[in-house]
Amino acid sequence: MQDNRISDAVIHRLPRYYRYLSELETAGIERISSSRMSHEMNLNASQIRRDLNCFGGFGQQGYGYQVTRLKQEIMRILGIGSTYRVVIVGVGNIGQALLKYRHFTDEGYHIIAVFDSDPQLIGRDLGNITIRSMNELAGFVKENKVDIGIISVPKAYAQKTADELVSLGVKGIWNFAPVDVEVRRGVSVENVHLSDSLYILSYHMRDKSENN
Amino acid sequence: MQDNRISDAVIHRLPRYYRYLSELETAGIERISSSRMSHEMNLNASQIRRDLNCFGGFGQQGYGYQVTRLKQEIMRILGIGSTYRVVIVGVGNIGQALLKYRHFTDEGYHIIAVFDSDPQLIGRDLGNITIRSMNELAGFVKENKVDIGIISVPKAYAQKTADELVSLGVKGIWNFAPVDVEVRRGVSVENVHLSDSLYILSYHMRDKSENN
Repeated sequence: MQDNRISDAVIHRLPRYYRYLSELETAGIERISSSRMSHEMNLNASQIRRDLNCFGGFGQQGYGYQVTRLKQEIMRILGIGSTYRVVIVGVGNIGQALLKYRHFTDEGYHIIAVFDSDPQLIGRDLGNITIRSMNELAGFVKENKVDIGIISVPKAYAQKTADELVSLGVKGIWNFAPVDVEVRRGVSVENVHLSDSLYILSYHMRDKSENN
Repeated sequence: MQDNRISDAVIHRLPRYYRYLSELETAGIERISSSRMSHEMNLNASQIRRDLNCFGGFGQQGYGYQVTRLKQEIMRILGIGSTYRVVIVGVGNIGQALLKYRHFTDEGYHIIAVFDSDPQLIGRDLGNITIRSMNELAGFVKENKVDIGIISVPKAYAQKTADELVSLGVKGIWNFAPVDVEVRRGVSVENVHLSDSLYILSYHMRDKSENN
């Protein structure tokens, strides 16, 4: 199993396979052909076969893929289902939305603390978690071996927050501030740019209106 | 200019070029070489040259790209800077976060109304916009020629909301409910899956910890 050879493009398609296979599993479907996947996922069938071959062939000619086995292998590669200790820094709308979206917890991403600098928010309960002061961040992160820090602070504080989390030993930064934060080698970061998909949407709208 | 030949992979990189070129422009930089872009964007230089050649060569050998001209061309292709009339359906945390993120407005995406079914929310002001009842949706969308509908309702209502918006003439759906909504031919949809980038993050974390 040589995960390192998997290209970035394939990695970025894996979450989609994971979501699709999860739906099949929920629907009680045990086997799936690449041609049906191709039709339902709107991806080229040979692309699907190439993608899935990257991490071992789970398909048999004329027999299809085993849904649960393939899903579990994709989860293993993505690291879904391992246990992560997660904190959220910045409890604005995005921070609160992520906290409420409990699906993450089922997948192993446990939000164990949330922090904000606003005295109006500190001490308040959100769900069953109490908003802590930023003054507690360093102590908490070190003591609780936090794996992932979610950054949802204003743009101007994002890099500083990332630097602090990394210096405290956090290995992954999931950043929602609208700026790319940078981290040192050995640490991972995903900068989420919500507006990118809005631009893609308007591209497709323009494209369709011109070709009608 | 043959936009139709641009591959999906290139389209998905364009927002990133757009963000990068905007930063250069703000910094007063007029020309940029593909090798410097390569270094700063962490993309292969020949990849960059191929991407940018897809929509006309703006670079000259040894001279680099004209930042503003290239940015404007990418904006034109993505449809940024045109005027879009946008409504938000569902004013939970994500809906509120998008409403507050005023950057969209500067780029032509004008949020002209927001809707919710919660009687506690209807009539309340958010920023300088009043939350309307879902009962007003049909009348409003038809009267105001809405281009884009943002869906941030619970998962169970997402497809129904998309169907209604499309039947009222909306041509683009930007969906934040954690389910893929489907639309008829001629309409565009972007389904945003926030957790996908969390999975990619945990992939990279696992990958780095295994290779250390």
